[in-house]
Amino acid sequence: MDDIILKKLQSDIGYHFNEVGLLKLALTHRSMGSQHNERLEFLGDSILSYSVSNKLYKNFSQLDEGDMSRVRASLVNGKNLAKLGKNFEIGNNLIMGPGELKSGGYKRESILADAVEAIIGAIYLDSDILTVNDVILNWLKHDFEKIDQNNVMKDPKTQLQELLQSKKMKLPNYEVVEIIGKAHNQKFKVRCLVKDLSLDVFATGTSRRKAEQASALKILEILQYDIKN
Amino acid sequence: MDDIILKKLQSDIGYHFNEVGLLKLALTHRSMGSQHNERLEFLGDSILSYSVSNKLYKNFSQLDEGDMSRVRASLVNGKNLAKLGKNFEIGNNLIMGPGELKSGGYKRESILADAVEAIIGAIYLDSDILTVNDVILNWLKHDFEKIDQNNVMKDPKTQLQELLQSKKMKLPNYEVVEIIGKAHNQKFKVRCLVKDLSLDVFATGTSRRKAEQASALKILEILQYDIKN
Repeated sequence: MDDIILKKLQSDIGYHFNEVGLLKLALTHRSMGSQHNERLEFLGDSILSYSVSNKLYKNFSQLDEGDMSRVRASLVNGKNLAKLGKNFEIGNNLIMGPGELKSGGYKRESILADAVEAIIGAIYLDSDILTVNDVILNWLKHDFEKIDQNNVMKDPKTQLQELLQSKKMKLPNYEVVEIIGKAHNQKFKVRCLVKDLSLDVFATGTSRRKAEQASALKILEILQYDIKN
Repeated sequence: MDDIILKKLQSDIGYHFNEVGLLKLALTHRSMGSQHNERLEFLGDSILSYSVSNKLYKNFSQLDEGDMSRVRASLVNGKNLAKLGKNFEIGNNLIMGPGELKSGGYKRESILADAVEAIIGAIYLDSDILTVNDVILNWLKHDFEKIDQNNVMKDPKTQLQELLQSKKMKLPNYEVVEIIGKAHNQKFKVRCLVKDLSLDVFATGTSRRKAEQASALKILEILQYDIKN
């Protein structure tokens, strides 16, 4: 990778590395062998989550905990991160093995999203938590601007219900199939069945309500439904 | 709540608040009405994850990304957090509605774990990210000491296999039931069937391998199997 490309990338992401080797590592896919970006991705993922959560807590006081969870999921999911990766033209800069290259891995959304998280980890290691936080919030500036606090997001069960109704399908069926554990430490296992789509998932939660919401969210994920915010 | 109890609690958790109101909010269950600890819990959860991930990245260089995920899950899960809550005797200090009190909510593991996360959020708001990081790492000191880098943890499929073998049960059956999405953005839906336990779960992932591991993890969670570290 030549220096001009790396300079452009750093200018696009809005951070210039002291140690460019960290950026190169963040761009290195596991198909390259022993040194790759997966540990950096793990680190970056948790920093991204902290950064977004902190912003939501401090600047979106009208959102309750459930709302914040849903907004955060919509900002840090693979699709949104891959979009960032495409804006930064990361695909052209990925370092990967010939097999992965040939099969078009540099276009795969999950690989782009992973590299974006790894870059976050790399910026953090090259600077500090406050600096990387500023970089992340700048990337997501427009996403945060679009969050409408008054039009509070709907929970997964409501979203699933509305989605099915819009397609003239029957409502999902929720059923508690198992209650696990003792009185003060119970887990509820719920089955959610959407007959018209032949979908059938299970989810657990510490209350019946939470398990039902989790099962509805799974269905939405399977349908690759854009969670509204 | 009298001041002596709050002083003891602050001494137990190893942090003294400038604004004790934040600690009181962290101890307030949603059954009390409009002002409760769920937003703080959301914030604290992400800080805890960052703190543990950062420590694992920097001090446990032999653990790969999968190992770090599993160790982190074992440290930040409800059970481990509830244990901390019990050590701090949080149960006696929870502020909750009469119905929840009567039904023994102050003993419920999930409520204790949530309050611990909320306390993390409260410490952060009362200080800064570096201070709360030190407090968290001090709480988890013994957990980190117990992590054996050489005896690298086993992945969920391996753990499930060994668990079933130890009970003389048949091995689980994995089957790809659906491949969703286009070529460069596929999701694999896998079914994991454990006949001898009448357990049958579905999980999705961006690769067949990831979906299988996720389905094995679900089975382990349903069995409330202590994930090894």
